[in-house]
Amino acid sequence: MIEDVSGWVQFKQSTWNYIVDPANWTTWLTIFLKVAIIYIVGRIINAVTRRAVAHMVQEREKSPLKFDQRRTKTIGKLIGSLISSTVNFFVIILVLSQFGFNLAPILAGAGVLGLAIGFGAQSLVKDVITGFFIIFEDQFAVGDVIQTGNFKGTVEEIGMRVTRIRNWTGEVHIIPNGLITQVTNFSSHNSLAVVDVTVAYEADLEKALQATKETVRRVYEGSDLIVKEPSVLGVQTVTNTDVTLRISAECRPNAQAEVMRVLNVELMRALDQLGFKKIS
Amino acid sequence: MIEDVSGWVQFKQSTWNYIVDPANWTTWLTIFLKVAIIYIVGRIINAVTRRAVAHMVQEREKSPLKFDQRRTKTIGKLIGSLISSTVNFFVIILVLSQFGFNLAPILAGAGVLGLAIGFGAQSLVKDVITGFFIIFEDQFAVGDVIQTGNFKGTVEEIGMRVTRIRNWTGEVHIIPNGLITQVTNFSSHNSLAVVDVTVAYEADLEKALQATKETVRRVYEGSDLIVKEPSVLGVQTVTNTDVTLRISAECRPNAQAEVMRVLNVELMRALDQLGFKKIS
Amino acid sequence: MIEDVSGWVQFKQSTWNYIVDPANWTTWLTIFLKVAIIYIVGRIINAVTRRAVAHMVQEREKSPLKFDQRRTKTIGKLIGSLISSTVNFFVIILVLSQFGFNLAPILAGAGVLGLAIGFGAQSLVKDVITGFFIIFEDQFAVGDVIQTGNFKGTVEEIGMRVTRIRNWTGEVHIIPNGLITQVTNFSSHNSLAVVDVTVAYEADLEKALQATKETVRRVYEGSDLIVKEPSVLGVQTVTNTDVTLRISAECRPNAQAEVMRVLNVELMRALDQLGFKKIS
Amino acid sequence: MIEDVSGWVQFKQSTWNYIVDPANWTTWLTIFLKVAIIYIVGRIINAVTRRAVAHMVQEREKSPLKFDQRRTKTIGKLIGSLISSTVNFFVIILVLSQFGFNLAPILAGAGVLGLAIGFGAQSLVKDVITGFFIIFEDQFAVGDVIQTGNFKGTVEEIGMRVTRIRNWTGEVHIIPNGLITQVTNFSSHNSLAVVDVTVAYEADLEKALQATKETVRRVYEGSDLIVKEPSVLGVQTVTNTDVTLRISAECRPNAQAEVMRVLNVELMRALDQLGFKKIS
Amino acid sequence: MIEDVSGWVQFKQSTWNYIVDPANWTTWLTIFLKVAIIYIVGRIINAVTRRAVAHMVQEREKSPLKFDQRRTKTIGKLIGSLISSTVNFFVIILVLSQFGFNLAPILAGAGVLGLAIGFGAQSLVKDVITGFFIIFEDQFAVGDVIQTGNFKGTVEEIGMRVTRIRNWTGEVHIIPNGLITQVTNFSSHNSLAVVDVTVAYEADLEKALQATKETVRRVYEGSDLIVKEPSVLGVQTVTNTDVTLRISAECRPNAQAEVMRVLNVELMRALDQLGFKKIS
Amino acid sequence: MIEDVSGWVQFKQSTWNYIVDPANWTTWLTIFLKVAIIYIVGRIINAVTRRAVAHMVQEREKSPLKFDQRRTKTIGKLIGSLISSTVNFFVIILVLSQFGFNLAPILAGAGVLGLAIGFGAQSLVKDVITGFFIIFEDQFAVGDVIQTGNFKGTVEEIGMRVTRIRNWTGEVHIIPNGLITQVTNFSSHNSLAVVDVTVAYEADLEKALQATKETVRRVYEGSDLIVKEPSVLGVQTVTNTDVTLRISAECRPNAQAEVMRVLNVELMRALDQLGFKKIS
Amino acid sequence: MIEDVSGWVQFKQSTWNYIVDPANWTTWLTIFLKVAIIYIVGRIINAVTRRAVAHMVQEREKSPLKFDQRRTKTIGKLIGSLISSTVNFFVIILVLSQFGFNLAPILAGAGVLGLAIGFGAQSLVKDVITGFFIIFEDQFAVGDVIQTGNFKGTVEEIGMRVTRIRNWTGEVHIIPNGLITQVTNFSSHNSLAVVDVTVAYEADLEKALQATKETVRRVYEGSDLIVKEPSVLGVQTVTNTDVTLRISAECRPNAQAEVMRVLNVELMRALDQLGFKKIS
Repeated sequence: MIEDVSGWVQFKQSTWNYIVDPANWTTWLTIFLKVAIIYIVGRIINAVTRRAVAHMVQEREKSPLKFDQRRTKTIGKLIGSLISSTVNFFVIILVLSQFGFNLAPILAGAGVLGLAIGFGAQSLVKDVITGFFIIFEDQFAVGDVIQTGNFKGTVEEIGMRVTRIRNWTGEVHIIPNGLITQVTNFSSHNSLAVVDVTVAYEADLEKALQATKETVRRVYEGSDLIVKEPSVLGVQTVTNTDVTLRISAECRPNAQAEVMRVLNVELMRALDQLGFKKIS
Repeated sequence: MIEDVSGWVQFKQSTWNYIVDPANWTTWLTIFLKVAIIYIVGRIINAVTRRAVAHMVQEREKSPLKFDQRRTKTIGKLIGSLISSTVNFFVIILVLSQFGFNLAPILAGAGVLGLAIGFGAQSLVKDVITGFFIIFEDQFAVGDVIQTGNFKGTVEEIGMRVTRIRNWTGEVHIIPNGLITQVTNFSSHNSLAVVDVTVAYEADLEKALQATKETVRRVYEGSDLIVKEPSVLGVQTVTNTDVTLRISAECRPNAQAEVMRVLNVELMRALDQLGFKKIS
Repeated sequence: MIEDVSGWVQFKQSTWNYIVDPANWTTWLTIFLKVAIIYIVGRIINAVTRRAVAHMVQEREKSPLKFDQRRTKTIGKLIGSLISSTVNFFVIILVLSQFGFNLAPILAGAGVLGLAIGFGAQSLVKDVITGFFIIFEDQFAVGDVIQTGNFKGTVEEIGMRVTRIRNWTGEVHIIPNGLITQVTNFSSHNSLAVVDVTVAYEADLEKALQATKETVRRVYEGSDLIVKEPSVLGVQTVTNTDVTLRISAECRPNAQAEVMRVLNVELMRALDQLGFKKIS
Repeated sequence: MIEDVSGWVQFKQSTWNYIVDPANWTTWLTIFLKVAIIYIVGRIINAVTRRAVAHMVQEREKSPLKFDQRRTKTIGKLIGSLISSTVNFFVIILVLSQFGFNLAPILAGAGVLGLAIGFGAQSLVKDVITGFFIIFEDQFAVGDVIQTGNFKGTVEEIGMRVTRIRNWTGEVHIIPNGLITQVTNFSSHNSLAVVDVTVAYEADLEKALQATKETVRRVYEGSDLIVKEPSVLGVQTVTNTDVTLRISAECRPNAQAEVMRVLNVELMRALDQLGFKKIS
Repeated sequence: MIEDVSGWVQFKQSTWNYIVDPANWTTWLTIFLKVAIIYIVGRIINAVTRRAVAHMVQEREKSPLKFDQRRTKTIGKLIGSLISSTVNFFVIILVLSQFGFNLAPILAGAGVLGLAIGFGAQSLVKDVITGFFIIFEDQFAVGDVIQTGNFKGTVEEIGMRVTRIRNWTGEVHIIPNGLITQVTNFSSHNSLAVVDVTVAYEADLEKALQATKETVRRVYEGSDLIVKEPSVLGVQTVTNTDVTLRISAECRPNAQAEVMRVLNVELMRALDQLGFKKIS
Repeated sequence: MIEDVSGWVQFKQSTWNYIVDPANWTTWLTIFLKVAIIYIVGRIINAVTRRAVAHMVQEREKSPLKFDQRRTKTIGKLIGSLISSTVNFFVIILVLSQFGFNLAPILAGAGVLGLAIGFGAQSLVKDVITGFFIIFEDQFAVGDVIQTGNFKGTVEEIGMRVTRIRNWTGEVHIIPNGLITQVTNFSSHNSLAVVDVTVAYEADLEKALQATKETVRRVYEGSDLIVKEPSVLGVQTVTNTDVTLRISAECRPNAQAEVMRVLNVELMRALDQLGFKKIS
Repeated sequence: MIEDVSGWVQFKQSTWNYIVDPANWTTWLTIFLKVAIIYIVGRIINAVTRRAVAHMVQEREKSPLKFDQRRTKTIGKLIGSLISSTVNFFVIILVLSQFGFNLAPILAGAGVLGLAIGFGAQSLVKDVITGFFIIFEDQFAVGDVIQTGNFKGTVEEIGMRVTRIRNWTGEVHIIPNGLITQVTNFSSHNSLAVVDVTVAYEADLEKALQATKETVRRVYEGSDLIVKEPSVLGVQTVTNTDVTLRISAECRPNAQAEVMRVLNVELMRALDQLGFKKIS
């Protein structure tokens, strides 16, 4: 047995045994089957995502807002190749792992990279989630006047990631949805116009109240911005020299500024005629 | 044995052995059983969540608040397909893992994605948890007047994620529950109206106190906003030219502004009659 | 041996062998034993937590504070089913894992979900821990007057998660314990009333000091809010036109405002009589 | 059997057996095959990334902006050697793991290092992601006048990581894209010029309004900055001594300052002629 | 062999073989030994921690500060049962894992819970670490006057988690050690009193300096708060109407206010006598 | 067989078998080979890093800036021994793991330590990354005048971790690169000098503009700081009493202050001569 | 065979076989060897760290700064026992894991604890790292005058964790190194004294400049704080009533205040003599 020749014979036979052993056959068959499945699934995912991106780019191109067409296409291609790179990377990794490569280091490296990207992208995710809830909870709609932080204006567009608010003087504020936390919506309810009228301390209070009420009713009847007859709340403050009366009027959303302006002018004129107006 | 023919015979026999070996039979049977169970459980979860979403959308449609119906349905579908995609993804992963695919890379990728979403969604989770405690601890209820941060108003709706507060001038503040940390509730206890009255330094202090007490009692008897007879606390400050008296009155929640207004007017008038009022 | 019939015979025998093999018997016995244990432990945990929640809800119902009973019960049920869902999920997972299912994907998914909830709940955990230390370190007790951040008032309730502070004008501030970091307790020590009295530059300083000391002692003897005879610290500042004397008096917690008011009035009167008072 | 010689014989034979055993042959063959594949893939990645960096450096050199050429090259080399070090590290790790080294400690160490770098780099990732969305969402383009935070100016360059904004007085603000959250774009819509004109209380309001309208139309016709005939909104406020009229004019983006200047001058002059101007 | 009876015989024999096989004996023996060790160690840890908690509670009861005794005991019990629950949980988990239960899901769940608690407790850990360094680095001691953030006062107690500072007017500030980052210690070094004296522009500067020096020396000799003879720094500023001299005096920690008061009074008097004082 | 002697014989033989078994030989040979490789690689890494540190220290010593030589050496040694400790720790861990020690606990401990350090070092990493981009993106160079946050001055040194900016009054601001987020560079573009000149309302505007233009051209011709002829923008504002003209002049970077000074003086003088200057 | 006796015989023999089987011998020998190594290494680490702590405590005792000796010793003991507890914990865990205990739950628990501590300690790590860089980069040295945040003073000690800065009025600011981000060093470069002198509009500018230059040179020659002859920059601003001249003088670090004082006085006097001084 310790002869070279017999060794060679033995080796040939073992090799043959390895080849004819059906256990090995099934092992290799399984591996190739798995690789095929992985490859096909990879190609399908690739095709699907590529088509989705192309669809998004086309929709963007149809949008009425002015977008730079060329740039959109360039970025569409960029995203497309980014996705197919990622899919291909996963396919290669999975195939290699089927052949028994120890790919833990590669996975660890990719995981750290993925985590870094994940950390950096967390405000992006937050934007999308908050944007979804803005729409789902009907917090505000396009056309509403809202304020968030220091930015106030008419909502022009609620997007996946940002909301565009147009200031009444024409500037457009672009705000990531994730930063739209505390919103004040001026358009969802009727607003309340509050007017303070000051008469001299010496004035006849009853007459002044009477005149105020009449003026207020006249304004109400002549305006379709006021939705309910305004109520004269009464004396608000008394100082050494003058008395302040308060009137409140429920009016249409966002119309309080105009209503207050009208009421202010009319009340001043009415009290002026009665001679009640305070000379400061 | 080293003949081709015998190899073929051997191979045929081994294959046969593999087929008739009951250990292999049980292995494959177990796998198919598991796959079946996974598939059925996946379909059940899918159906249950889909029905839950449909239920939520229907409830939303019945709600008295004006919601955009079409949008709610679209979003309902969106959530539905999102959930079924996730469930299907898990079913596929589980089935593949039963057939011996090494899916660690896929899992790692999905885990990183999941973490990124988890990070981005953490304020959403916080909103829901805080919302739950707002209700459980009865911090405030719909109709209460509260202040949180710079926003004050009547609570209109306490939702899962946001609370809507209506300002007295009509704006609606929409605040995520997670940002409602320090709340001041104006409606849960009686409020205290504090009035400071200034008389001239030369005035007779005893008479002034007497007049104040009488006026205060008169106001108390004529008002149902004041819950206890107001107490005259006494001299608050003494300056070169005048003495300030302080009166405090416990009144109904949120009624202190009105009570202070009434007390102020009445006290000024009473002291005016006595000639005690300071000429500034 | 390569006949069909003998194959069938062989298969029948192997199956029989598998059945009568005691190793398989013990394997299956162990599995069923484990499943039984898991199921029983699950049911016990379920029952215990359910009872604990019911107990908490009952305690809440007995509480003197006004809580919405119906809401408490609804939330009790909600928590109950949440806990039993979680327990059932774990039981199912454990049972399946005993039968050899590869549940890593499910665990990974649940782990990511759990982490997201954990991140969102971290301020909740912080609230409970801080609340525990507020009580353990005796930082303040119900009835103390404290200030934390911009909120000052009497402590009304120290809860697991929030502390309620009642402002002296009646509002209730509800503050999560985790935000109560830097607390000022006004009720744990005697307070110090500091009074500055200004006399004219030309006044006789010795006489003024003498009069001040006498007045202060008289006030001290007539008041039980001052715990130690107040000390006249001496000349605080000298300007071109007047000299300021400073008096400090240790008094009961939270009584300094009242003591300062009394001292101020009495000292002004006394110095007024001596003609030392500065005419501004 | 317990003789030395036979031991030696036995050993020689076993070694021989180990060598001629085809199982061992395949094992070693597989290992060397894998190592070869790993090495080749490593070299390919190395070459590709090196070429990509060289390409980036060349592009930078061609850029019209003045860059320090020498510095760009030095940094190009630095990045190149950084990447090849990383790739080589992974190749070595993978090769060693094929030979059965337990490299978990090395991986753990590298993982902690990678995480630290990942944490430190997260604002870099955020910059790139936000920069991508600025371009994709067309938030602003080169040449637009924008404001973000306290920085306002004309956009000069939108880069991968930073955006350069040129102040109208010549300074260049360099802002990381990740900090460009809330942007106000002054160039995307027409702007609104708002002018308030004050006339004396005693003035004839009808005449004043008439004069205002005429002046405004004249200015509109003579200016191509105003895109629509300005509207006279009417009386804005009424005080004891004067009345304020408000005019608003839609004009080209960023032109409101100039339009307001022109309107202001013209209106003052026109009202001055009528003698309506208030003497303050 | 395919007879039922022989199957039964075979089964009986296999069972017997399983029982008499010493390998199984050792397996079971090892398991029970391990379980016993785990149980005993668990009981020891339980006893030790329980005693430690009892010791802490007793120490707290002996403390001179007023603590609510009943509450301390309740919380002592609470902590005790919390610790024993945790220990028992670990003992059960370890015992079950010895019997081959797959407890990964339970561990994962407990791990997520532990992480949530760990995140919530991180400011607690920070407090303890910072507290340790405050003492180890001798940043301040009980009795020192310090300022941190807006809180200034005498240190009353440096605890494991919080430091109590007593304001000079009697309030106690309770500050978590983790928030004591930037501390100013007023008691560790001599303080410097800086006095500015203004003389009229026309005054004889030499004489004024001479008088200042003499006065300062006289004050220094009569005071034990000043540790070094104060130095007259010279002319600080010159304006159209007056000249300002500056004197600085090193005095005991925290005594500068009193020294400045004394120096101010004495210098004003001395210069007054010379007629140098400016009439404003 | 149950005799002691035969047991001994059996044992001796088994031991012998263990020793002569080539499988064991290869096992031990592999282990020692691996240990040797680990040791050698460790020594190489050690030597390389040590030399790198020594090189850095030497470079530092050659630097023209004044550095404390002794301190640099001490720290160089410190870093050196820190690195060699870390390398030795890894070598020991790897060697032990080859001998079959279960070192998971050690690794876990070191991992937690590493993570803590990683968290603490993340701002260090950020500094280095940002510093790299400051140079790569040519944000500013040594000698530029920049402002970041509240710090403005001439850049003196851009380091790996910090940037030194020298204020014009001589202080050196040392700012970590990671905090240099929003930079304003004053040296990269020409600056714009903006001068407002006020003439009396009654002045002849045409003449004033003429005089202004002439003066501005004269200044431009006599100065090499102004790069383009300044333009007179026209009337900026009109008030009751005066008219303001605005002139803007593009000048060299950082020269606007000097140009404005010159223009201001010259314009004032020119208008003064014409008698147009407003008497305030 | 199915007799009890033969079972017992069989059992005895199997046990004997287990005992004489050298494979078991080597297994147990290896375990005990490993345990011994672990124990010895643990003792060594224990001894080394204990000695290091003792060394640190001794150094602290020798330090010239006043430290509470007793406290230092107590804390030294505390750290010592903390370290030995940790080492012992690891030794026990490692020994148990050698005997086949499944210690994953314990490790997971300790890991969560370690992470919580790691999170809490991250600012400690940051302090040490930043402290190291302060020294390595020579940002400032003991004796320099620096400002960081709102704290300005002379550096008294740069420690591992905190830096002590002494205010010029004697307070000591203790600042964690991690919070020393943006430092201004006043001692590393010459400072620039900037003096503005105002002369009346009617004054002869040439003469005034001449007098200014002469005075400045005279001051420069008589002072060793000014390092370069000061330059008269010229007219800074021109107003209706006066002209302001600016002089800048480079002087020693931190000496600008004194130089400005001297220059101010001398220039005022010189211009006063010429009668140029403005009467305000």
